[in-house]
Amino acid sequence: MVDVVTFGETMVRLSPPGFQRLEQSIMLNLSIGGSELTVAAGISRLGLSTEWVSRLTKNQLGRMIVDKAREFGVVTDHIIWTEEDRIGLYFIEYGASPRASQVLYDRSDSAIARIQPGEVNWEPILKGARLFHVSGITPALSENAAYATAEALNMARKLGITISYDLNYRAKLWSQEKARNIQTAFMKQVDILITTEEDTYRVFGIKGKDYREVAKVLCDTFGFKVVTITLRETPTVWQNTWSAFAYSDRLYYEDVKYNIEVVDRVGAGDNYSAGFLYGYLTAGVEEGVRIGTAFSALKQTSWGDFNWATCEEVHALIKGSNLRIVR
Amino acid sequence: MVDVVTFGETMVRLSPPGFQRLEQSIMLNLSIGGSELTVAAGISRLGLSTEWVSRLTKNQLGRMIVDKAREFGVVTDHIIWTEEDRIGLYFIEYGASPRASQVLYDRSDSAIARIQPGEVNWEPILKGARLFHVSGITPALSENAAYATAEALNMARKLGITISYDLNYRAKLWSQEKARNIQTAFMKQVDILITTEEDTYRVFGIKGKDYREVAKVLCDTFGFKVVTITLRETPTVWQNTWSAFAYSDRLYYEDVKYNIEVVDRVGAGDNYSAGFLYGYLTAGVEEGVRIGTAFSALKQTSWGDFNWATCEEVHALIKGSNLRIVR
Amino acid sequence: MVDVVTFGETMVRLSPPGFQRLEQSIMLNLSIGGSELTVAAGISRLGLSTEWVSRLTKNQLGRMIVDKAREFGVVTDHIIWTEEDRIGLYFIEYGASPRASQVLYDRSDSAIARIQPGEVNWEPILKGARLFHVSGITPALSENAAYATAEALNMARKLGITISYDLNYRAKLWSQEKARNIQTAFMKQVDILITTEEDTYRVFGIKGKDYREVAKVLCDTFGFKVVTITLRETPTVWQNTWSAFAYSDRLYYEDVKYNIEVVDRVGAGDNYSAGFLYGYLTAGVEEGVRIGTAFSALKQTSWGDFNWATCEEVHALIKGSNLRIVR
Amino acid sequence: MVDVVTFGETMVRLSPPGFQRLEQSIMLNLSIGGSELTVAAGISRLGLSTEWVSRLTKNQLGRMIVDKAREFGVVTDHIIWTEEDRIGLYFIEYGASPRASQVLYDRSDSAIARIQPGEVNWEPILKGARLFHVSGITPALSENAAYATAEALNMARKLGITISYDLNYRAKLWSQEKARNIQTAFMKQVDILITTEEDTYRVFGIKGKDYREVAKVLCDTFGFKVVTITLRETPTVWQNTWSAFAYSDRLYYEDVKYNIEVVDRVGAGDNYSAGFLYGYLTAGVEEGVRIGTAFSALKQTSWGDFNWATCEEVHALIKGSNLRIVR
Amino acid sequence: MVDVVTFGETMVRLSPPGFQRLEQSIMLNLSIGGSELTVAAGISRLGLSTEWVSRLTKNQLGRMIVDKAREFGVVTDHIIWTEEDRIGLYFIEYGASPRASQVLYDRSDSAIARIQPGEVNWEPILKGARLFHVSGITPALSENAAYATAEALNMARKLGITISYDLNYRAKLWSQEKARNIQTAFMKQVDILITTEEDTYRVFGIKGKDYREVAKVLCDTFGFKVVTITLRETPTVWQNTWSAFAYSDRLYYEDVKYNIEVVDRVGAGDNYSAGFLYGYLTAGVEEGVRIGTAFSALKQTSWGDFNWATCEEVHALIKGSNLRIVR
Amino acid sequence: MVDVVTFGETMVRLSPPGFQRLEQSIMLNLSIGGSELTVAAGISRLGLSTEWVSRLTKNQLGRMIVDKAREFGVVTDHIIWTEEDRIGLYFIEYGASPRASQVLYDRSDSAIARIQPGEVNWEPILKGARLFHVSGITPALSENAAYATAEALNMARKLGITISYDLNYRAKLWSQEKARNIQTAFMKQVDILITTEEDTYRVFGIKGKDYREVAKVLCDTFGFKVVTITLRETPTVWQNTWSAFAYSDRLYYEDVKYNIEVVDRVGAGDNYSAGFLYGYLTAGVEEGVRIGTAFSALKQTSWGDFNWATCEEVHALIKGSNLRIVR
Repeated sequence: MVDVVTFGETMVRLSPPGFQRLEQSIMLNLSIGGSELTVAAGISRLGLSTEWVSRLTKNQLGRMIVDKAREFGVVTDHIIWTEEDRIGLYFIEYGASPRASQVLYDRSDSAIARIQPGEVNWEPILKGARLFHVSGITPALSENAAYATAEALNMARKLGITISYDLNYRAKLWSQEKARNIQTAFMKQVDILITTEEDTYRVFGIKGKDYREVAKVLCDTFGFKVVTITLRETPTVWQNTWSAFAYSDRLYYEDVKYNIEVVDRVGAGDNYSAGFLYGYLTAGVEEGVRIGTAFSALKQTSWGDFNWATCEEVHALIKGSNLRIVR
Repeated sequence: MVDVVTFGETMVRLSPPGFQRLEQSIMLNLSIGGSELTVAAGISRLGLSTEWVSRLTKNQLGRMIVDKAREFGVVTDHIIWTEEDRIGLYFIEYGASPRASQVLYDRSDSAIARIQPGEVNWEPILKGARLFHVSGITPALSENAAYATAEALNMARKLGITISYDLNYRAKLWSQEKARNIQTAFMKQVDILITTEEDTYRVFGIKGKDYREVAKVLCDTFGFKVVTITLRETPTVWQNTWSAFAYSDRLYYEDVKYNIEVVDRVGAGDNYSAGFLYGYLTAGVEEGVRIGTAFSALKQTSWGDFNWATCEEVHALIKGSNLRIVR
Repeated sequence: MVDVVTFGETMVRLSPPGFQRLEQSIMLNLSIGGSELTVAAGISRLGLSTEWVSRLTKNQLGRMIVDKAREFGVVTDHIIWTEEDRIGLYFIEYGASPRASQVLYDRSDSAIARIQPGEVNWEPILKGARLFHVSGITPALSENAAYATAEALNMARKLGITISYDLNYRAKLWSQEKARNIQTAFMKQVDILITTEEDTYRVFGIKGKDYREVAKVLCDTFGFKVVTITLRETPTVWQNTWSAFAYSDRLYYEDVKYNIEVVDRVGAGDNYSAGFLYGYLTAGVEEGVRIGTAFSALKQTSWGDFNWATCEEVHALIKGSNLRIVR
Repeated sequence: MVDVVTFGETMVRLSPPGFQRLEQSIMLNLSIGGSELTVAAGISRLGLSTEWVSRLTKNQLGRMIVDKAREFGVVTDHIIWTEEDRIGLYFIEYGASPRASQVLYDRSDSAIARIQPGEVNWEPILKGARLFHVSGITPALSENAAYATAEALNMARKLGITISYDLNYRAKLWSQEKARNIQTAFMKQVDILITTEEDTYRVFGIKGKDYREVAKVLCDTFGFKVVTITLRETPTVWQNTWSAFAYSDRLYYEDVKYNIEVVDRVGAGDNYSAGFLYGYLTAGVEEGVRIGTAFSALKQTSWGDFNWATCEEVHALIKGSNLRIVR
Repeated sequence: MVDVVTFGETMVRLSPPGFQRLEQSIMLNLSIGGSELTVAAGISRLGLSTEWVSRLTKNQLGRMIVDKAREFGVVTDHIIWTEEDRIGLYFIEYGASPRASQVLYDRSDSAIARIQPGEVNWEPILKGARLFHVSGITPALSENAAYATAEALNMARKLGITISYDLNYRAKLWSQEKARNIQTAFMKQVDILITTEEDTYRVFGIKGKDYREVAKVLCDTFGFKVVTITLRETPTVWQNTWSAFAYSDRLYYEDVKYNIEVVDRVGAGDNYSAGFLYGYLTAGVEEGVRIGTAFSALKQTSWGDFNWATCEEVHALIKGSNLRIVR
Repeated sequence: MVDVVTFGETMVRLSPPGFQRLEQSIMLNLSIGGSELTVAAGISRLGLSTEWVSRLTKNQLGRMIVDKAREFGVVTDHIIWTEEDRIGLYFIEYGASPRASQVLYDRSDSAIARIQPGEVNWEPILKGARLFHVSGITPALSENAAYATAEALNMARKLGITISYDLNYRAKLWSQEKARNIQTAFMKQVDILITTEEDTYRVFGIKGKDYREVAKVLCDTFGFKVVTITLRETPTVWQNTWSAFAYSDRLYYEDVKYNIEVVDRVGAGDNYSAGFLYGYLTAGVEEGVRIGTAFSALKQTSWGDFNWATCEEVHALIKGSNLRIVR
């Protein structure tokens, strides 16, 4: 029995080195990335047990995804394997001011987008888990994936498991209207909502005078136990600030703001989720925000979606960072 | 007006360096590859003018394909650009004895597979050209692509242009039966057939006591002006022999057999086609075989589908190679 | 018939990766670079047709230069090929504050420096073109190259083609005095002068209380239709600001100032020229300055002299940049 | 409960790329390697469950070893972690004829060499397993490691688990005399001995007219159920042949001889062990030899100690290899 | 006879590229590093002759260290070679705000830590030299190394050679108390102390209202001829400021503060020592500070412990830097 | 006083990795190469002291050459430094059968080609040396370089130093006629001639029924003490055989023939010279041939002109090689 179960797509990730444009590259860095597996990997890295559920094509790319999940200690025993379909891909071109980084997706018709109703038997997977986590990317993949998401949420609710949901709106996958229609139903089952001000507005049309008000309105509207919001400033592409905040039970939890020399910002939100959920499950909302922010800040200083920071490093950073060389 | 027009798909090509397995790689070499563009690039490299026709998605990958076609001097003025669909991909894992190299395709639903009837206006493209070339991969991509191939062949025939066809059977794209049904019709329009013994048997069920007889039966059956067959021996993955042969007008043209220290054998057949067609158009069948074999042998000693050998190098090799360092 | 013709040297460019000093490197990045080809490539990338004229030694390095010109769609049909002489080279050591980047040239006796009078037949090349562009580097290469430059300018003038000239003073190639003597004659034929305050002072001894006055004095002195000046600030090696300005027909055209996280600043000026000339030819001086500044700002965020930004990216940047990841 | 448990050291492995000598390198490929973990990883890759037991220093290098064990699905729940000692290292310089490849060890005083009596609680680890495997490297590391090996063997015997032992003599770690003294005692507990003719002679002084006789004498002397011997010929460094053989219950099991284009021969023996044990446990001695030889042959065609070949590839090779490209 | 002799350990240095964490790397940059050899190499680069004394294991790693010392012109004629022991190693993980860079040492039981009393015959080495330099790392390695340091200092004192000592406290090698006890005796022989405020406090418990007072107290306490202190500010990991200061004969020598875009800060202190000692020996304390600060600032802009800046570049920087590209 | 002095050009060497053609490369491996420095480096590596004399441009490339000479322990105290001229370059494209490797030189007008009469003061350099070595490349560079060669040979003869001369004919540098005219005069001063059958025929028109006769005729014609000839067979580009032979005082010295898996054959001849001269000076002609052949065979198994093999490895190979991994 694992502590946390997540469900979603993981893609092969391809990116040119050294700020090259894709058109000029002759070699690409190869890794994997996907919101829910990144969350599971982060939580596992911090110390709780996790399982990731998905549907994968049985070829070298599918196996690579499972290899790397296991490398982080994530259980992959309930993956649905198929000889059909494909593994989705995405390309990242890293920018530099005034050119933003950009992602080119090639994920249509992936194995998980073609998941069938009832293909995952959720009861044995979720039984005994403490938390189920999914993001808004999964139902956006296809009608079938939305249906499978609903199946998982229903079973988690039935089993009394805490449900965490990262809104993660992707305009290239579905319209705001569709995202609102499908997810409004889901929200009733959600305990913890992880979001940004921008996504909240795009999906639910909810705005406020500041992020505190947005969180409050969300709680009042949907009855969440916790709403937590990540906060990024991007004066340049490679120098950002990073913080987060939570609202729960009428209390506001603010965290410090980190100055980040960004090495790779992809996966920042998912690693916030991982840190938050780990902290939440082991010590409550306040510690969740603190660990989430620090864990995500550290992730942004190394390459890849997954986070190689240790729990000790997280706690050291929370105590205060010193930028001199450690020896 | 170019000398040669070709039509088909070009994919992005991704391969791990240094005999790595895909699962263990963290970086991939990036290039492009596709039978008919490789032929056009090779002919252009040797000295005739060429144009390549295809349908491409308008993104970085589509632009990269056109960049690299132009780098070899291939005209790309009649590409059909679309905002939809995708650029196909393929992965190559290079083997070593006793493990063969293998290709993993991810080319479904590419832009050219979704080409529409009438989308290419063939008349202005083909008018004035000396030769039209396509391979059996193009009609295998989809019903639509097969239809477009037929349109091209019909127009070429109508304009009295020589037609060259590389049988190039791909079992992952269509069944032998489907390949036979569709291509039997095409064969009536073809002047020059480029093939291997194995493909001839798989597609048309034609066998003979040796490649000479196979060629003769093909000519007798379909009325080709020329049949040319490439001949490879693979005692090990990285030490091969390479030769070719043609049959035309009841004459047999044999060539020397090259010992190849293989650097990259992908594209060998297409570069034989390029060399053969260049030689055929400039000096006849005999020179075609000689240039085709030598040009393809040289190609196999450098990396990538395209051929960086020069016409001078080809002629020097035909005169006799010396393996000492040239300085 | 192309829209724009340029004339000058392109060299092989060699640079150590990752801020290494040349003495410590064991591998060098290889590319090409040269002012006038960079301008032609940039204009072609933006959408007008271009041709580049030069003299090249017929070996692998000469062919590589033509390959890469063609990759950007630049016509190379009138290159003068020779079996003699050599392809010039330059090495770049990228610095970091407080160490500036530096270039080591090895370009003496290159093929273009040894061009002969009358070797280029300018009339068929220039006939029908809208603009001829050259920089002050070309006449600086040798007496012969200066003579060839004069031949080109004379023919362009005779054919009534607009002439654009980038002053581009290179102290290692000629003295200020020599640069003044030779170029003063050229200036009478020039319509558009592209320059910096520093070069204007070094070549013509012209100074002003600010760049606006400098531009005005230049116009008054030489009768240019347009003078355009690029403006860079370098608080650190890798964080610069970039802007440009034009003066034409008594009007001043100022542009916004971009904050640049510099990836590679080599080629910034040439890509300004490209963007300015494209904008000027398609929409006038004001659009020229806007496109030139934005196109050059984008170029500085990727590696190499050539610019892989698209026209769409330029227009998006002019509308306002957002540094968040695009997905 | 896993099927197979192994026990031993894993080191960080550093090797210069491309046949460079260590003295001339400025970058090293980084991986891990160690006999018993390689065996566990191989068996897991083929489809049985495995656990690897060791003692590791708790730093980045120790964590890296566990990461990569988990990547192959090997359970690492009973690793002894320490803040003291160090992770051993080894350097490989790949040779080319007539220069052999060579290994430089830096493994003194590693965490496992300093393992304490009783530090591993073997009973819960071994209970329920089908097989325990260790090589002669583990007892060679130190007196303490030899003691821990004896503890494991005793418990395995007590629990009635099959014991497999790879003789793996390392002259740099102990003398032949010491190896004989300590291991002669161990041999009484061993069911399956994996060895080479050379090691058998060096450790036990046993020789025969051929490997068949050697195997028979070993069985007669120590009462093994199975003796299996790997057979390599090295006409050149990069072209080897590879086969294996087993003797069990008075029967001889010979296998085909593979021609290997060696990519990396390190780990060949351990992957034979993995394949043999997997085959033995699932289908008996004969299948063990077949799978062991093929699995190891495939391993030698990719880089690193671990084996990325799949069970499907092994069976395909046993059926007969074709060295043409697979597509 | 060389001008300057230094004594200490040099290790192999391994670091992941591009901000990777060690756990995720598959390749490491390889170099060497060690305080006293870095000082000798820097002084040699600037123009005085130097020798470095150490004890090394005779294998590829030991030879690599000598190769690279010689590459900088450092004499290595009195190295003690041994077949035993090992070459120490260290790993660097480069950080990015808010993650500091960190060093993982693996240097126990290295050849120099096991140096024997009297193993170096100091008299012929030091005779005729102008200066002997050692850092506090050498005596921290082991009792034996401390003893050898004392032997060297005694001989240098006896021969009337100027002694320079860099305090360089390493908490992982010895306690503050031990460092104080052993080094307090050494200080009586030292002429020039190179230190930081932090190290001064940790080793001698000396604090002051600012670095000027610290230097004065040090001089008053130990009777140094010169105390020089380096000054670094680290607002972020990759943007630092750098300066230095000296106190000698009751005079204070301050230097400018450089803004550094840090490429590699390892070796900054040692290169300050090199620049200071070169300047001190050729032109006195004031020039020492100036050259030391500038030489060290330049070193931080390229990769590796050693400094590839030239004496000309140092003087150019002292005159004032211009961050535009030099061509 | 060194044992051996050599004189000649060293160039920067640039080569694409992995069999790439130069036109397709985006990165080049950077090293240095030149016949006489390679000889000096090899002799130094084996254990005698050496000095290399040349003329170099004082820039990063000139310094890099001296750095790498010193890395091998070669004295560089009498290099003539100039601010003028340039450092020569060469590019290597590694081939694979049937494409030979080829070298593209760009060495015209290098610093040493422009050496002035009397610029090197040979007497203090050569006084006390045991041997002076030069190859036929040096006089081929220019009239001035031929004159400087004559100066060196005259002084060596005057001082009674043994003279070794490697014929090394380079057709791109001078005609056979010119090579014969200038070198015939030199031969009277030469004691040891190192050559191949092919070069002997091209320069002196001397042929024989086998290499033994060629050597005898050379000795009879010019009165050499020793003639030594290297022997290579190239069945493929990457599998060669290598041997050598000497004739001296009417005795023939034959050596074994090595099978070489070639990693880099450039520098093979120069490393034969180094090994032969080291062996000759320390143990006579017979040992010279043995060490020369083995040292050169080992060199061909690693990358670069210089030889990283040790004297121990050479002696081990002479005793007999074993291609199994050494551990």
